Amino acid sequence: MTKAMPKALERLIENLKSLPGIGEKSATRLALHILRWKESQAQELAQSIAELHQKIGICSRCYTFSEQDPCPICVDSSRDSSAICVVEDPDALVAIEQSGVFRGCYHVLHGVLSPMDGIGPEELKIRELLKRIGQQDIKEVILATSSTVAGEATAAYIAKLLEGTNIKLSRIACGIPMGMDLKYADKMTLQRALEARQKL
Amino acid sequence: MTKAMPKALERLIENLKSLPGIGEKSATRLALHILRWKESQAQELAQSIAELHQKIGICSRCYTFSEQDPCPICVDSSRDSSAICVVEDPDALVAIEQSGVFRGCYHVLHGVLSPMDGIGPEELKIRELLKRIGQQDIKEVILATSSTVAGEATAAYIAKLLEGTNIKLSRIACGIPMGMDLKYADKMTLQRALEARQKL
Repeated sequence: MTKAMPKALERLIENLKSLPGIGEKSATRLALHILRWKESQAQELAQSIAELHQKIGICSRCYTFSEQDPCPICVDSSRDSSAICVVEDPDALVAIEQSGVFRGCYHVLHGVLSPMDGIGPEELKIRELLKRIGQQDIKEVILATSSTVAGEATAAYIAKLLEGTNIKLSRIACGIPMGMDLKYADKMTLQRALEARQKL
Repeated sequence: MTKAMPKALERLIENLKSLPGIGEKSATRLALHILRWKESQAQELAQSIAELHQKIGICSRCYTFSEQDPCPICVDSSRDSSAICVVEDPDALVAIEQSGVFRGCYHVLHGVLSPMDGIGPEELKIRELLKRIGQQDIKEVILATSSTVAGEATAAYIAKLLEGTNIKLSRIACGIPMGMDLKYADKMTLQRALEARQKL
């Protein structure tokens, strides 16, 4: 950094660079943009970051991020608490909620199995899932981890653990995304989409 | 937003969306990423945003962002204070400083002429530039605004104002960027690059 960069700006740029997808150039652009804001707007952003960890905890039932415990979804009596949709992280939960199609409850694993990164079953909320299934009256489990190698492995691992129980177990469908031209789909996706073809 | 999104997260996402190039999805991703940080890291980011406006002001000589007044560049006696490089904003100043090629001083306009957006000469630090030229012993002015329509117009406007003075006036060169394949250059750039060809 040169003399041209005030220390306070350098500090902010360094911090912004820790965010995903933000390098030196983007961080500099964002920091200078914030400096051009009114001070009150910058303070509002600073405060909303500062209060984040103080206000948000983890739901002791489904392990999603929440300001209440249990979270609003877990306590919502209009939802089917006997159906659990298992997701990798709170982002996935939000995405499914926004689709509006699922009316059961969730279980957030906080990751996927990844032995290379030292993430085994103990690092995820898998034991907590089994405990929940043992204590509550769970009839259905939908494995909604991503269709990545790690996501598939995690789903297979949990499926194996639930073998022999009476639970209706399913995996979210893998296929051609809506609006995608078939010729751009990769081989694996096409293979899966054909295998999982549905009668009309 | 659904129930799945805690209010404190929603607030941060709304604030992040005011940053350039950050939409709903990126803002959500960044906010959830910050929530996964240790609280101390989030506090460090929050503080560096909060202190920005308090620590950084504008240099009363060259109008760049600075913690001191005059800024470290303006008071650096090893630099040639008789040469002024005129730039649009502090970002451009930082970019030129990082190239390490210019050893004079700067003048930051804080924008370019844009009548459609209500930005005329009075909104920029043009009067301040003329005053500086009248008071200090300025021998050279380099107009280093961008090669956009507005940047060109601003440079032309200032050039007109300095007509008839003894100041050595120049415009930063327009041409093919280093490493760029000629066939991808636009017509205007090629035209300029040919007109400004240099003898070998």
